[in-house]
Amino acid sequence: MPRSTLICYGELLLRLGAPGRQTLLQTPALEVHVGGAEANVAVSLARMGHRVGMASTVADNALGAHAVGELRRHGVDTRHVHAAPGRMGLYFLETGAGHRPSDVLYDRADSAFTRAAALDWATCLDGARWLHLSGVTPALGAACAQAAIDAAEAAVVAGVQVSFDGNFRAKLWQAWDSDPPAILRRLMATATVLFADHRDMAVVLGADCDAAEVAGKVVQAAGHAFEAFPRLRYFACTQRVQHDVDHHELSAMLVERGGRVHATPVHALRNVVDRIGGGDAFAAGVLHGFLEGAPAGEALQSGLAAACLKHSIPGDFNLAGRGDVEHFLSAEGFHVRR
Amino acid sequence: MPRSTLICYGELLLRLGAPGRQTLLQTPALEVHVGGAEANVAVSLARMGHRVGMASTVADNALGAHAVGELRRHGVDTRHVHAAPGRMGLYFLETGAGHRPSDVLYDRADSAFTRAAALDWATCLDGARWLHLSGVTPALGAACAQAAIDAAEAAVVAGVQVSFDGNFRAKLWQAWDSDPPAILRRLMATATVLFADHRDMAVVLGADCDAAEVAGKVVQAAGHAFEAFPRLRYFACTQRVQHDVDHHELSAMLVERGGRVHATPVHALRNVVDRIGGGDAFAAGVLHGFLEGAPAGEALQSGLAAACLKHSIPGDFNLAGRGDVEHFLSAEGFHVRR
Amino acid sequence: MPRSTLICYGELLLRLGAPGRQTLLQTPALEVHVGGAEANVAVSLARMGHRVGMASTVADNALGAHAVGELRRHGVDTRHVHAAPGRMGLYFLETGAGHRPSDVLYDRADSAFTRAAALDWATCLDGARWLHLSGVTPALGAACAQAAIDAAEAAVVAGVQVSFDGNFRAKLWQAWDSDPPAILRRLMATATVLFADHRDMAVVLGADCDAAEVAGKVVQAAGHAFEAFPRLRYFACTQRVQHDVDHHELSAMLVERGGRVHATPVHALRNVVDRIGGGDAFAAGVLHGFLEGAPAGEALQSGLAAACLKHSIPGDFNLAGRGDVEHFLSAEGFHVRR
Amino acid sequence: MPRSTLICYGELLLRLGAPGRQTLLQTPALEVHVGGAEANVAVSLARMGHRVGMASTVADNALGAHAVGELRRHGVDTRHVHAAPGRMGLYFLETGAGHRPSDVLYDRADSAFTRAAALDWATCLDGARWLHLSGVTPALGAACAQAAIDAAEAAVVAGVQVSFDGNFRAKLWQAWDSDPPAILRRLMATATVLFADHRDMAVVLGADCDAAEVAGKVVQAAGHAFEAFPRLRYFACTQRVQHDVDHHELSAMLVERGGRVHATPVHALRNVVDRIGGGDAFAAGVLHGFLEGAPAGEALQSGLAAACLKHSIPGDFNLAGRGDVEHFLSAEGFHVRR
Amino acid sequence: MPRSTLICYGELLLRLGAPGRQTLLQTPALEVHVGGAEANVAVSLARMGHRVGMASTVADNALGAHAVGELRRHGVDTRHVHAAPGRMGLYFLETGAGHRPSDVLYDRADSAFTRAAALDWATCLDGARWLHLSGVTPALGAACAQAAIDAAEAAVVAGVQVSFDGNFRAKLWQAWDSDPPAILRRLMATATVLFADHRDMAVVLGADCDAAEVAGKVVQAAGHAFEAFPRLRYFACTQRVQHDVDHHELSAMLVERGGRVHATPVHALRNVVDRIGGGDAFAAGVLHGFLEGAPAGEALQSGLAAACLKHSIPGDFNLAGRGDVEHFLSAEGFHVRR
Amino acid sequence: MPRSTLICYGELLLRLGAPGRQTLLQTPALEVHVGGAEANVAVSLARMGHRVGMASTVADNALGAHAVGELRRHGVDTRHVHAAPGRMGLYFLETGAGHRPSDVLYDRADSAFTRAAALDWATCLDGARWLHLSGVTPALGAACAQAAIDAAEAAVVAGVQVSFDGNFRAKLWQAWDSDPPAILRRLMATATVLFADHRDMAVVLGADCDAAEVAGKVVQAAGHAFEAFPRLRYFACTQRVQHDVDHHELSAMLVERGGRVHATPVHALRNVVDRIGGGDAFAAGVLHGFLEGAPAGEALQSGLAAACLKHSIPGDFNLAGRGDVEHFLSAEGFHVRR
Repeated sequence: MPRSTLICYGELLLRLGAPGRQTLLQTPALEVHVGGAEANVAVSLARMGHRVGMASTVADNALGAHAVGELRRHGVDTRHVHAAPGRMGLYFLETGAGHRPSDVLYDRADSAFTRAAALDWATCLDGARWLHLSGVTPALGAACAQAAIDAAEAAVVAGVQVSFDGNFRAKLWQAWDSDPPAILRRLMATATVLFADHRDMAVVLGADCDAAEVAGKVVQAAGHAFEAFPRLRYFACTQRVQHDVDHHELSAMLVERGGRVHATPVHALRNVVDRIGGGDAFAAGVLHGFLEGAPAGEALQSGLAAACLKHSIPGDFNLAGRGDVEHFLSAEGFHVRR
Repeated sequence: MPRSTLICYGELLLRLGAPGRQTLLQTPALEVHVGGAEANVAVSLARMGHRVGMASTVADNALGAHAVGELRRHGVDTRHVHAAPGRMGLYFLETGAGHRPSDVLYDRADSAFTRAAALDWATCLDGARWLHLSGVTPALGAACAQAAIDAAEAAVVAGVQVSFDGNFRAKLWQAWDSDPPAILRRLMATATVLFADHRDMAVVLGADCDAAEVAGKVVQAAGHAFEAFPRLRYFACTQRVQHDVDHHELSAMLVERGGRVHATPVHALRNVVDRIGGGDAFAAGVLHGFLEGAPAGEALQSGLAAACLKHSIPGDFNLAGRGDVEHFLSAEGFHVRR
Repeated sequence: MPRSTLICYGELLLRLGAPGRQTLLQTPALEVHVGGAEANVAVSLARMGHRVGMASTVADNALGAHAVGELRRHGVDTRHVHAAPGRMGLYFLETGAGHRPSDVLYDRADSAFTRAAALDWATCLDGARWLHLSGVTPALGAACAQAAIDAAEAAVVAGVQVSFDGNFRAKLWQAWDSDPPAILRRLMATATVLFADHRDMAVVLGADCDAAEVAGKVVQAAGHAFEAFPRLRYFACTQRVQHDVDHHELSAMLVERGGRVHATPVHALRNVVDRIGGGDAFAAGVLHGFLEGAPAGEALQSGLAAACLKHSIPGDFNLAGRGDVEHFLSAEGFHVRR
Repeated sequence: MPRSTLICYGELLLRLGAPGRQTLLQTPALEVHVGGAEANVAVSLARMGHRVGMASTVADNALGAHAVGELRRHGVDTRHVHAAPGRMGLYFLETGAGHRPSDVLYDRADSAFTRAAALDWATCLDGARWLHLSGVTPALGAACAQAAIDAAEAAVVAGVQVSFDGNFRAKLWQAWDSDPPAILRRLMATATVLFADHRDMAVVLGADCDAAEVAGKVVQAAGHAFEAFPRLRYFACTQRVQHDVDHHELSAMLVERGGRVHATPVHALRNVVDRIGGGDAFAAGVLHGFLEGAPAGEALQSGLAAACLKHSIPGDFNLAGRGDVEHFLSAEGFHVRR
Repeated sequence: MPRSTLICYGELLLRLGAPGRQTLLQTPALEVHVGGAEANVAVSLARMGHRVGMASTVADNALGAHAVGELRRHGVDTRHVHAAPGRMGLYFLETGAGHRPSDVLYDRADSAFTRAAALDWATCLDGARWLHLSGVTPALGAACAQAAIDAAEAAVVAGVQVSFDGNFRAKLWQAWDSDPPAILRRLMATATVLFADHRDMAVVLGADCDAAEVAGKVVQAAGHAFEAFPRLRYFACTQRVQHDVDHHELSAMLVERGGRVHATPVHALRNVVDRIGGGDAFAAGVLHGFLEGAPAGEALQSGLAAACLKHSIPGDFNLAGRGDVEHFLSAEGFHVRR
Repeated sequence: MPRSTLICYGELLLRLGAPGRQTLLQTPALEVHVGGAEANVAVSLARMGHRVGMASTVADNALGAHAVGELRRHGVDTRHVHAAPGRMGLYFLETGAGHRPSDVLYDRADSAFTRAAALDWATCLDGARWLHLSGVTPALGAACAQAAIDAAEAAVVAGVQVSFDGNFRAKLWQAWDSDPPAILRRLMATATVLFADHRDMAVVLGADCDAAEVAGKVVQAAGHAFEAFPRLRYFACTQRVQHDVDHHELSAMLVERGGRVHATPVHALRNVVDRIGGGDAFAAGVLHGFLEGAPAGEALQSGLAAACLKHSIPGDFNLAGRGDVEHFLSAEGFHVRR
């Protein structure tokens, strides 16, 4: 089997969710999905036809085996996913509705991944063109932070491009004696593509983005990022307006080094099926564009298409394929495809 | 276990509902929920942290035991729920969608509750500050009407505050040789808080409310009520506009004796999960405010918050807790709570 | 049992659908519904109280028996549904959401119906006043096309009225050496009522409908049809605007020979449960009006009512009854019917 | 549609059962099956290819319509099932396992059937060769008892054969001021075939059956029956030994007037799926034999085959067809039939 | 609410189990049950009508609230169950079949219970006659061991009887620097009733039980226990033979101080639904006997009855009530109870 | 990814099965499993830790993609599974119980596999040590028969060992103008290991096996096979006795060239969960032994262990792993593995 074009490094989680719009354990049943910010990117790209590998550590039990099996099922190469003693990270999900927001209850402490975060980066990256990481991994503890930095810096040394998704989770960072800006700066410094917005830049760079409109803030934030991180070429993010839990509006922006700004139209998401993983789908869609050699504006469109489609699909993974993205972009409408 | 602050008196019902948006018995499965207008109030208040007791009679079989068990599960004190020969009242529910309204098929005649409506009120009310009843109970027959009146009047004698929810059900009253206005007037005369609107006042007092707008009619109705019922201090109701079965708008008003009028903004409910029990949730939310010592305007806001949240929760019970109501009122939006 | 007033002739299919909004086989479960354009009409009319018979051929196995049993369950007379060797036509359905369209995967080739399409029309039509066919049947192959023509022409000879629903499916016609316009013209020439629009007339008559608005195009198309088909008296169709997969707007038009045009208001369908069979429900609703002796404008209203209601009901069949249509037309709103 | 060969008269019930081996409402879901002793016979015979009609009254609501629809689905002619005001009889079922017996909780009082038991027997029986009744109907109250007697005696007058299944239910008889022996004697006096055993004869005739073995008791009971009921020609029953809830042994006997005794081998039922309706399946299997013109011993074998097969099928109805019975009797074993 | 007669102290767990006989996550669904050795005893006794309280600590989140709610639902007093920071202990269950044993995957480390094991024993035991503990709690770590000892010794001081169920779990003890014999001896020294067998006595006392038959070994073990633990009056255990995963034989013995030996017949369990909690049901059944004042031999019979019944009920809890135990002991057989 | 040790060649099928012990479409739900005789072997070996590849053709649609995804999920290398136009072979399964045998309804004609059976054998076999085929493939038509022969003969040429499982399916062979003995002889002539019994040898070689006992017949059949097929070294089969659908006894024999005979004990399977794929699991277990270098007698034990375990697992695939087989062979019993 040929080596993967793109490697995602991060933790695999099991989602245990209440069915439908029930409250958690309203009835004694849970639906299981595999997720994790970086795994979501891996699956999304594999479903769009790319050769993608995952680098991770799972528990050496039936739960870990399930997580790996699901990645394989969707076409991700798992030769660099190791099984080790410990537990799988879990999260319990209650999907909200209307005026009741969704609740996530994390139960991920002390997982096999956090115990054995470091991998053999030379082997993992061998043959790859791209490494994708997110801000979740360094937030999981000092060893994970170091592992993420090692991976990203090994990629730079090996000439492998790095994309990094900010994904700032304050609660995770607060659980240990952490210095998020310092760690995140080292990671962002390795990236060619950064998925982040003005709030991330405020955390990482202390940067003020005082434009009146969100679009202006994003442009300012991108400017700060390009200044701070010389390797960086693309700065991208989504903008979301939530009318209620089921009805959102989504758009996206991408700023190129040099200042060129791309923006998408606003899409109404009137009946959100599952928003978890929407940001990861966006990242995957943008990377899909870049892997295909598309110009940045088209990559951004792919990203927003993938993000919108994800909101219609149950589970953490964006199962939409290349054809679905193309259909979205073609604006052919919503007829039943027979 | 300490005695309950608030006692709800009424019948417990079992809902047997078609799954999802199926028509009744389209597939041979039914989902079961426990309900009943007063039990819904009891559970909602218990979930918000109040000490609540239920006074009722259930069938002395597995169905009755289930109904009691569900109340206990949600924290309601059931020491005053008795088991007696007879059947449980049932209702079959087909939840509609779009242009197809929901259908309720009652099968509640001759229940254990209606056979043994009278309870020992002194014991039930011992230590309580509040008694809640609704217009469903007196509609169930002469003995039930008498029992409700006895309960309410015993509360007045004992210095226990009474709240009464009109809940006028013409079909139930028509099933026996009833005089609804006379009975309801005796009950409303005991109440400090009345959940009712201009249609109820037309039935009970023959009162004309001829204002052009609904808000004006409610104020007129409240005026008639304050005149007729000297104990009454608060008159509250919701206003609902239905664009279709899934898309409503909800707001609420509360009129204080003396004429002070409170009103909430209108909230769009764009994707109604389950509207059964919405009115009971409103009553519970208002009572929550009063039990907390909040001013009337804030109590009204709590009521509307609880009512809106109920529309997002499957089943008759409003499972939202105090934190959910506070989140709603904080207008912090619809992000996933992690 | 008395003979049927109306006979539907066509193939019965089994739908195997992913649950809820899952992608196909995302979880290893399929929900089964019986369908078929003409069977959908038959069930809808039977549920509205008409004596309806189905003429068809099913596989002589448990799947065929199930399809027949479901028709019987809903009150359709199945004495003219024969069991014969071969397979049942299947289709796999993935119901979309938001920006992800639904997908139908047909697996209906070489079915028992296509192998044994011809029936004894004199027997089937004995006692009937009406025969309903659709453009699906002739598209299934030369034998099916001939059988449909034979049935329709036998009806004309026997003084049985014919209704025909265009239901043009390009993929089916392309699977064999077909001449759709020639075949469809022979069928449409037998019809009193034609469910079709300007796109159908472009295919069948090569007719240009160049009005600026859709309404104008429909009127032009009807004009062409009345000119080409002297038996034709009514030309009807729906107009659909799709904001996304879950949110449509639906209206309908009916043109009478002589040029009288009827049109309905536009109805918003904000939360589409299942759109499959919506067009068949429209046809059934219009035929319901005609069978009741209603004027054309009222028949059209019934048709749109049935179509709108169908979108709220899972499965291919419109299970709405006469009372549901009347409730829709009464505009009494969306209260729970207790 | 041709008239039915055999008519079954009795009440249709809805079973609401806990899934699998759960206790009742352990989880809040119920599985629905249609049943009723006589309906079970009707469906079983229809599935074996006979023309069978049901005579009954159901509630004029969605539950009644469902019960009728299920009979139609399985091929029973329902033209003599009427809809009338009232409720459907229900029963709640908790299926046991191992050492925990199954529990049935009846909720069938005051049903539409008991309110409107009398039918127009001449119309119902027109064209029929056989009428089947059971001891459940007369136990439901004085009107039902009279209706059953009227039906049976009308059959005798019309030259229609009567079969009667004892089905003695003490609790039902005790609910009213009944004289079971007198009523049952009038019914049994009309029967050609009686499904009953020594316990029934003790109740009905006060007959002592003091043989040491069960087989001897059955022969004695048959002797008493032949003496008391001159029309009677066949006396049949099953014998069941229960090792636990899941593991039974089943055999059957049939005694002919004149004393000829037929007995089947004992069949082990090691994994009982659903025993409800086993006795009704036996009756249907015996009647199947008689309707086919088989000798009494073969009819008995069909009866036991049907009874054994029923224990493998969920629900009240025996869905086994003629081929299944023949396969059982062929002793071809238990290979997968491909 | 009156104080509880019997208090159980121990951890509450959530079971997440694969449905039916599926392997873990073969399909992505989990069924949830609440359990825990001591909670199982509490629920069983509450279902048999005793006033039982639970003393424990749960996580202060929705999972902990669910566990408490389930205890309340079944009638257990939970005023002494506290919510504290931390996680809920989980276990994943794959129920085996035939030759495939069941697998339990524990994920219970670092739970809220183990972080906050100590409770205010004086308050918990106030008014109680009995305290029940098991060997699971002390195995969870030093603090838990100390808490269990404190509880048991506080009971002795307060004149509350102690029952102790050995429940030796080697893996739990091995996870920390433990001295099981020393800890268990201190606990057993407080007990009046000990549920244990010769394997437990080998661990705790190093006692050799060299009789040829199991019965003899149990008597020897009891002798060692009576010698070592002067407070001890009853020594009881079950004996299980497993033919395969679904087919067991179960019996039980109880030895009284002074040497009187009681033994039950052997009961075949041919179709085990769920064996988890069988030992806890036994303990509860024996305690039920003692609480009722039954002689030891009868208490033993109740214990075995409860244990056998538990094997027929899904979940950790024995939901059988007093009537079920009496039915079992009456040997009335396995007829459907109508 | 390293190349596979063993390649399986054959068709992938989708099983659509009725839930539990329901009759087909008794409720409108189907459970989906992926299967196919050779795929079952592949998955079983992959789960036991071997590097296994599948060679096949699936439909180029969502159903084909699902089948491939499931193989990948379980660790099978699918680089040689191609997607091509056409349909997926389906089979509908009704799992029997007690005296009701299971029914399989095949709907596999004209599949993508049968249209494109031939593969590039040099590529598929590159690096493999073993090729496994079964008698299902050549039965599917002339092209499939030729493809199977080509594959097997290419293996011989390449020095790859061949194992062949007879799997004689008369109905498939009868569907075309076939000469089963001639084709099967060519295939068996390539095999080192043959899974077959005396019935297969009667078909293929016309061999008489007239020993009184089954064991003797198997030895005779093996003798004929060794004589006819010089490459053959091992002849193995299971023996099954069926007491009813749920209760079987299973044993197995293996005969070595030279006459050494190995036999296993008889194992009771008292509660068969799913017997489909039991023979394939046996073949996989034997091959597991050989791939591990075990002596023939031990390989046979592994085979029977895998076969017995398969009967406890829902679906076509034997999901038991190496540890499960070892546990079975260790005879450590049926305790819950914690």
